[in-house]
Amino acid sequence: MTDAPDAPDAAAEIDVSIPHLDDDAREAAQERQQHLTKPPGSLGRLETMAADIAAMQATPQPAVDPAVVATLAADHGVASEGVSAYPQSVTGAMVEAVDAGGAAISALAAAGDIETLVVDMGIAGDVPDGVIDAHVADGTANMADGPAMTAAQARESIRNGQRVVADHAADAGIVGLGEMGIGNTTASAAITALLTDRSVAAVTGHGTGIDEATRQRKIETIEHAIAVSEPDPDDPLDVLRCVGGFEIGGLVGVTLEAASRRVPVVVDGFIASAAALLAVEIEPRVADYLLGSHASVEPGHAAQLDALGIKPCFDYGMRLGEGTGAALAIGIYRAACTAHTEMATFEEAGIKPE
Amino acid sequence: MTDAPDAPDAAAEIDVSIPHLDDDAREAAQERQQHLTKPPGSLGRLETMAADIAAMQATPQPAVDPAVVATLAADHGVASEGVSAYPQSVTGAMVEAVDAGGAAISALAAAGDIETLVVDMGIAGDVPDGVIDAHVADGTANMADGPAMTAAQARESIRNGQRVVADHAADAGIVGLGEMGIGNTTASAAITALLTDRSVAAVTGHGTGIDEATRQRKIETIEHAIAVSEPDPDDPLDVLRCVGGFEIGGLVGVTLEAASRRVPVVVDGFIASAAALLAVEIEPRVADYLLGSHASVEPGHAAQLDALGIKPCFDYGMRLGEGTGAALAIGIYRAACTAHTEMATFEEAGIKPE
Repeated sequence: MTDAPDAPDAAAEIDVSIPHLDDDAREAAQERQQHLTKPPGSLGRLETMAADIAAMQATPQPAVDPAVVATLAADHGVASEGVSAYPQSVTGAMVEAVDAGGAAISALAAAGDIETLVVDMGIAGDVPDGVIDAHVADGTANMADGPAMTAAQARESIRNGQRVVADHAADAGIVGLGEMGIGNTTASAAITALLTDRSVAAVTGHGTGIDEATRQRKIETIEHAIAVSEPDPDDPLDVLRCVGGFEIGGLVGVTLEAASRRVPVVVDGFIASAAALLAVEIEPRVADYLLGSHASVEPGHAAQLDALGIKPCFDYGMRLGEGTGAALAIGIYRAACTAHTEMATFEEAGIKPE
Repeated sequence: MTDAPDAPDAAAEIDVSIPHLDDDAREAAQERQQHLTKPPGSLGRLETMAADIAAMQATPQPAVDPAVVATLAADHGVASEGVSAYPQSVTGAMVEAVDAGGAAISALAAAGDIETLVVDMGIAGDVPDGVIDAHVADGTANMADGPAMTAAQARESIRNGQRVVADHAADAGIVGLGEMGIGNTTASAAITALLTDRSVAAVTGHGTGIDEATRQRKIETIEHAIAVSEPDPDDPLDVLRCVGGFEIGGLVGVTLEAASRRVPVVVDGFIASAAALLAVEIEPRVADYLLGSHASVEPGHAAQLDALGIKPCFDYGMRLGEGTGAALAIGIYRAACTAHTEMATFEEAGIKPE
């Protein structure tokens, strides 16, 4: 990623305005922390987290509730190349599992008092009731044969993602990025290679659990797709069009819209981070509103976090997606904000520390 | 710490029986994880956590609720040597702050749906109503002048800690170790140096925030205390007697009693880990029931965790104590157990993964 992205087309075509961070709110938060009933700095990174969120939310009393994880799902034509351990039909089935409350994100969200938004961005099969409709098309085209989508579809996926936040998470205190889509680590590796100037091999991993031969096929498929469509790495909409996915475009929209509303965005693993890279390329100031969650085992994740300038909160060797890392991290950010807002000051507690 | 602790006196004097881990429950839990709606292993360390807790609780369906953090407080005669940034009176004042809900542990416990037990193990000043009475004496003697307590007080502190669990946390799913006590990093550094065979300087840090000159005085005080009382490093009760504290003895008791009841024990920072070292020296099988929380900034913490054989869950540069790291970690362990028990299997969800 370049230091000063030059993407006039994208910025012009996607309507977005990101406010500056509120440095006064951050300073007021930091000042408050000096008076709370604890040795100064003794909550470590929890204090930094609270001050960062204060600057995003423009208040010295930051809060993450109501907390939302948006799990966007879509199918990928490239799945027919045999790049995944699972058939394409699993995307729709997993959406049903989330809808029924039996997926990992369902369990983690319930345990963490987080609302889940399950969104159809372009599932190829049947979609259960209760899933938010932001459907662009029945899966992308196979990127190995040409662009994954049209330029109009790329814009539509982003706008649909923006609308998900506007319609369903306008009052959220924090939004986590989640996704489901068989084949979407392939799309994300292609995006990451293009936007971080890494080789495809360096950012392509084992996804949901493929063997080394399949990984080699995945690398060749991505390299072939890039050669066929020749995406312009300086134009994020063109990258999304050639090698992206509808749920990835949707997450770009979720990120842009949340940031425009001063809602902190918790990045998840490899796919969510690829979407965050595209969002930052469209509007660099978005980076100010991103928060880390887990360190994924996908080899390209570290390169993504480095480019995004965010630090993970924990490293548990997770590689599930769905927003599971974001859900876990939201619990940490909630703890940081609650300690910040609910602790008494030494004055309130009647303690003279010196 | 020796591989085969030889402490017949301690084992004889402290009544404790720790059950073996349940390997069948662990295997049943691991088997279940293969059928949940996710790629095998994709929840990473969360899966290991759930299986570990299954073995401790002797059930394939582990659960942390009701979750408890026991915050034990006591005063230390060694505080008069000027080893802390705060006067001794702050211990009692902080207990009042916890009791009133304004301390860091109060906020984190409330945010994390955790019950706090605030326990007076030996506060020198007034104690507010609502605090559990397990008082041994009005603070320890100054270890720089001789043993911090009598052998009878050492045993009493452990037994009182055991009773806290028996009387107030018998039905807990998990117990976190918390403490408050001005001067207690001094006691903990002495214990850690003796039990991990490190130099005092190597395990003595800046506590709540002392400068380097004060840290040097702290090191000299500890070295002097060890020279004066000559504790036997192979006898944990003797170490507790010479250089310990009443809340540390209490945490030894909490740890022994929880483990004897198959309740997982979440270690906190430097002081809680010193107590855990003593508990393991009394009964090595206790180590099977310990879970990590944060990586403290105290330099001796890594040596402690290494000796205890546990891994931290996160590293946020925290150094507050009170059980704050344990409270944060309990949220992670709850997420691990909830994902494990609440997720659907592929069969239940009607998905054929292959």
